[in-house]
Amino acid sequence: MDSVAAFHENLHGQVLDLLRTVGTFGRTETGGISRLAASREEQGARDHLCRWLRAHGFTVRIDPVGNIFGVLDLGDALSDRAFFCGSHLDSQPDGGNFDGALGVVCACIAALFLKDRVCRGELKPAYRYYVVTCWTGEEGARFQPSLVGSSVFTGTLDLETAWALEDADGIALKDALRDTGYRGTDDVLRPDHYLELHIEQGTRLEAVGGVIGLVETCWGADKLRVQVTGKADHTGPTPMEDRRDALLAAARVVVAAREISDAAEETLYSSVGRMELHPNSPNTVVDAATLWVEFRSASQHALEQATQAFENRLPKIAEQTGCDLAIPLREHREAIRFDATAIDHAAATLDGAGVPYLHLDTIAGHDAIRMQSVCPSTLLFVPSRDGITHSPLEFTSDADVCAGFDAMTAVLARLIARPENDRRSGQ
Amino acid sequence: MDSVAAFHENLHGQVLDLLRTVGTFGRTETGGISRLAASREEQGARDHLCRWLRAHGFTVRIDPVGNIFGVLDLGDALSDRAFFCGSHLDSQPDGGNFDGALGVVCACIAALFLKDRVCRGELKPAYRYYVVTCWTGEEGARFQPSLVGSSVFTGTLDLETAWALEDADGIALKDALRDTGYRGTDDVLRPDHYLELHIEQGTRLEAVGGVIGLVETCWGADKLRVQVTGKADHTGPTPMEDRRDALLAAARVVVAAREISDAAEETLYSSVGRMELHPNSPNTVVDAATLWVEFRSASQHALEQATQAFENRLPKIAEQTGCDLAIPLREHREAIRFDATAIDHAAATLDGAGVPYLHLDTIAGHDAIRMQSVCPSTLLFVPSRDGITHSPLEFTSDADVCAGFDAMTAVLARLIARPENDRRSGQ
Repeated sequence: MDSVAAFHENLHGQVLDLLRTVGTFGRTETGGISRLAASREEQGARDHLCRWLRAHGFTVRIDPVGNIFGVLDLGDALSDRAFFCGSHLDSQPDGGNFDGALGVVCACIAALFLKDRVCRGELKPAYRYYVVTCWTGEEGARFQPSLVGSSVFTGTLDLETAWALEDADGIALKDALRDTGYRGTDDVLRPDHYLELHIEQGTRLEAVGGVIGLVETCWGADKLRVQVTGKADHTGPTPMEDRRDALLAAARVVVAAREISDAAEETLYSSVGRMELHPNSPNTVVDAATLWVEFRSASQHALEQATQAFENRLPKIAEQTGCDLAIPLREHREAIRFDATAIDHAAATLDGAGVPYLHLDTIAGHDAIRMQSVCPSTLLFVPSRDGITHSPLEFTSDADVCAGFDAMTAVLARLIARPENDRRSGQ
Repeated sequence: MDSVAAFHENLHGQVLDLLRTVGTFGRTETGGISRLAASREEQGARDHLCRWLRAHGFTVRIDPVGNIFGVLDLGDALSDRAFFCGSHLDSQPDGGNFDGALGVVCACIAALFLKDRVCRGELKPAYRYYVVTCWTGEEGARFQPSLVGSSVFTGTLDLETAWALEDADGIALKDALRDTGYRGTDDVLRPDHYLELHIEQGTRLEAVGGVIGLVETCWGADKLRVQVTGKADHTGPTPMEDRRDALLAAARVVVAAREISDAAEETLYSSVGRMELHPNSPNTVVDAATLWVEFRSASQHALEQATQAFENRLPKIAEQTGCDLAIPLREHREAIRFDATAIDHAAATLDGAGVPYLHLDTIAGHDAIRMQSVCPSTLLFVPSRDGITHSPLEFTSDADVCAGFDAMTAVLARLIARPENDRRSGQ
């Protein structure tokens, strides 16, 4: 084995090792990961990666919403241009260790790859390299909405609103960040380009075997908070006709959301992933239910039709159950298209390296989507077994992890050397 | 006002005062009561009543499941015969202060009434008087099933099973009792008669105005725990046809239970008051749901038909949603009839005192139902405004509380003097 091949093999080992270490933070009895945003478990992973960054010559910067950036000066970089690469550390409750952590770990080890190429005179980066080891609260599991850290960073969510978000126990994000030591005060350069490696969380790559996904578009989404108000009563003596059962109404809302996506003419997904009930006691009629309803589609038209159909169903449910139904909160996420020039560069790089790839869309939200609103953003996928994610069964093989790392570093090397394709290229 | 009338008025004041004081333990911001079984809040009320009992000459006995008995020797009582009177102190989350507390408070103050009658030579009790200030866990709110304390006391639930019951945080009743100081070791005499005053939790008394309810029967109930198992997945990319959404299946179960009671030929009530979801995170398909389903009816036939119809619906829901549905736990509570002779005595007492009353049935479960399985048991109701209960809006007027106290003490005086109508009368 020549020295370059040996070096690459060593990098693969470091990727797998660091991924394994990150996976010890928040490990559950089921073998899954519960590493909620700004929790003690996530703090452990944050601390570990900050130590890793400092040990490898990075300057660590932490912003007020807890995003962590490792800044690496690669010698002859343009000092005011920043190339960001990273992902998130938080997980779903009992989720997997590839969702987020994979992109963070690969962005870290990629620094060693970049340094090596620079030292050997094979690469002249046009940017400072920023590893984002942690976009705060990507998952939207503990705090809603999702993509909190990248939304604040890109200005689509203001800091005070983000700080005021509360988890189910009423703990504010602002306090959770302080308590874990990650409510920073650092300013961070605006990025000129963003790159993220992530698991597909679908089965299209697996179906063709061992290939990279080059993401072109992201589906739009409408996320609706539905509030149902009924009346508390004894589940025994209260005559059925006098009951205003908020759980019955909520159940009809869940069924309605599914019926709407089943009946949609264009492809449209729906879900209710969370529902909170009060008082949730066996002998009391539920008097309040909150539902987190979402519709997702590549088609703006389909989304509009679905949310309209959904809203049209609520008065009937209110009438059937005697409950009040309202939508106090809604979030609309536009379908977006990733930077086409960057995709062309990435495709040319993979073609040149003989790496098979598929052009894909993504249905899940990613920090890369938020970043695309402020700079060219590139999102690469690796296969995930059976498409299972947000589950202890989430899995990507070592071979696919390493192939993903190689594809990402190849694309990174090309993009970081080319300032003509960044957010200022049109200026 | 003569001295007897003044004494009675004083007792009314003491009833209202003690009820108000008990209502300070677990008071919520909404003005309701959250005094869950074996909680710190309930401990406060237990402590207060134990002090009250000791200050009024009672011996306090606490059994291993935390039931509290205040024993009063009325001088010439038959020392081995026990007349029990009481209710429970626990409430629903954000419930009311009349459900349970009323019966406890009236049973306490009734001791002063009994003493007075005995001192004046107007009453020769045939029993020791036992105030049950706390049947543990009547509500079934924190620990399921309901009626835990009276079930263990009457032998329909064994102590070890009761101790092992866990709340939603995994805390065992055994430990909660120990931590609050109410896992006792005292033996308690078997009761020969039981009397309980309770709010109606319905509107039939209110409809005719200011009358006492004399409960003849209690509806039967079938309580079914339904477990739904789906598969965790990302709510975004997972194709709809691949999802096994446990919340969708649970919603169909809730709707099915209601459809069954709506279609029942005889009067039958249904409810789902509690539902637990996992992981209950907005971006993850729910993989597990647990539902607390109940059917209640005076008709055993209607109950059988409903539970059968319900079970018949589950395979279809499983087929529609790809989930597994099972009923891991079921509790059948027979419809019961309260002791007819005691009802006749109570009716004669109320007739004699010119107190208007209605013969009623009860749909809600009560400790008196459990007691009827071991001794003649008598249950009296007072009106509750609009029938609202398990809610901060639960309310009974001072006048109705005092009328209830008077009716209860009159019936008590008659029954406690008549050993020929107790559990040993047939021996």
